[in-house]
Amino acid sequence: MSRLDSFIRRLEAQRACLDWAIAASWDLAGVALELGLGNGRTYDHLRSRLAHAREIFAFDRQLAAHPGCIPDSDHLLLGDFRETLPALAARLGRGAALVHADTGSGDSAASQMQARGLVSLIDPLLNLGAAIVSDQDMKPDPRFGWLAQTLPAGVAEGRYFLYRKAG
Amino acid sequence: MSRLDSFIRRLEAQRACLDWAIAASWDLAGVALELGLGNGRTYDHLRSRLAHAREIFAFDRQLAAHPGCIPDSDHLLLGDFRETLPALAARLGRGAALVHADTGSGDSAASQMQARGLVSLIDPLLNLGAAIVSDQDMKPDPRFGWLAQTLPAGVAEGRYFLYRKAG
Repeated sequence: MSRLDSFIRRLEAQRACLDWAIAASWDLAGVALELGLGNGRTYDHLRSRLAHAREIFAFDRQLAAHPGCIPDSDHLLLGDFRETLPALAARLGRGAALVHADTGSGDSAASQMQARGLVSLIDPLLNLGAAIVSDQDMKPDPRFGWLAQTLPAGVAEGRYFLYRKAG
Repeated sequence: MSRLDSFIRRLEAQRACLDWAIAASWDLAGVALELGLGNGRTYDHLRSRLAHAREIFAFDRQLAAHPGCIPDSDHLLLGDFRETLPALAARLGRGAALVHADTGSGDSAASQMQARGLVSLIDPLLNLGAAIVSDQDMKPDPRFGWLAQTLPAGVAEGRYFLYRKAG
């Protein structure tokens, strides 16, 4: 499999997992959270599928998105997740129905550490039933009640990680 | 169609066009030319499909490829295409069977101008029957005998441009 093949598979898997999360959370109240706006491609995907059904808040350390994929200033939270997530939780409470955490970097050990640290930051924002998609194995502590979900057909094990927030 | 959808389609189209060129030139003698090594993803695709059947020469203004996708120094030609292409032509003559020109930048007018200028630089390298894939409409002058070819199924008109070198 060439790097081109592998890249296409990764993007197709990403789209399948986002579409799963959109479907799984369809009837839930709450906003969507995009953690790691990056170039804005997946933000645009969520926006195109959710339209005005759900507000989307995008987080990033610094802005690097395509000009057409930048949320308005009320929905763009720049800075350290350890500050921006608690700040939004203080405003919204358990007001999120969908979370996409695309936080992996080139350094896989650091990415895994960061992803595990995100669980306790994201959890206070989750409505019951919320759907979570992550490019990292978040290894949530059982006390949070995040239940691992089956990947969509065609997505290789370990490429993405899906959860739902139970009680 | 979201930017994620559109990006996946573009990569799938790219792969389909490369696979067309590999098949179309299979029985021809000659090397492959990768114009615009970039991150090296399509170079890796050509390499994985052609293995040792064909030497691949990669060109770029400057090196920006993933470390795993960098040709050895004999097959990496850095600098202005207007110098590196004639230099290779002086060595190989009509020694190329496959050309992938992935030279588009954010500036579409400049990209089109550059692509048209490439025709007269690439042509002296082409074996009869050579397959050419380009992300730009190269609008080859008829005197070069580049015949436009039908796109593979599923590739939208205008996304890629295929040619074969006739007499």
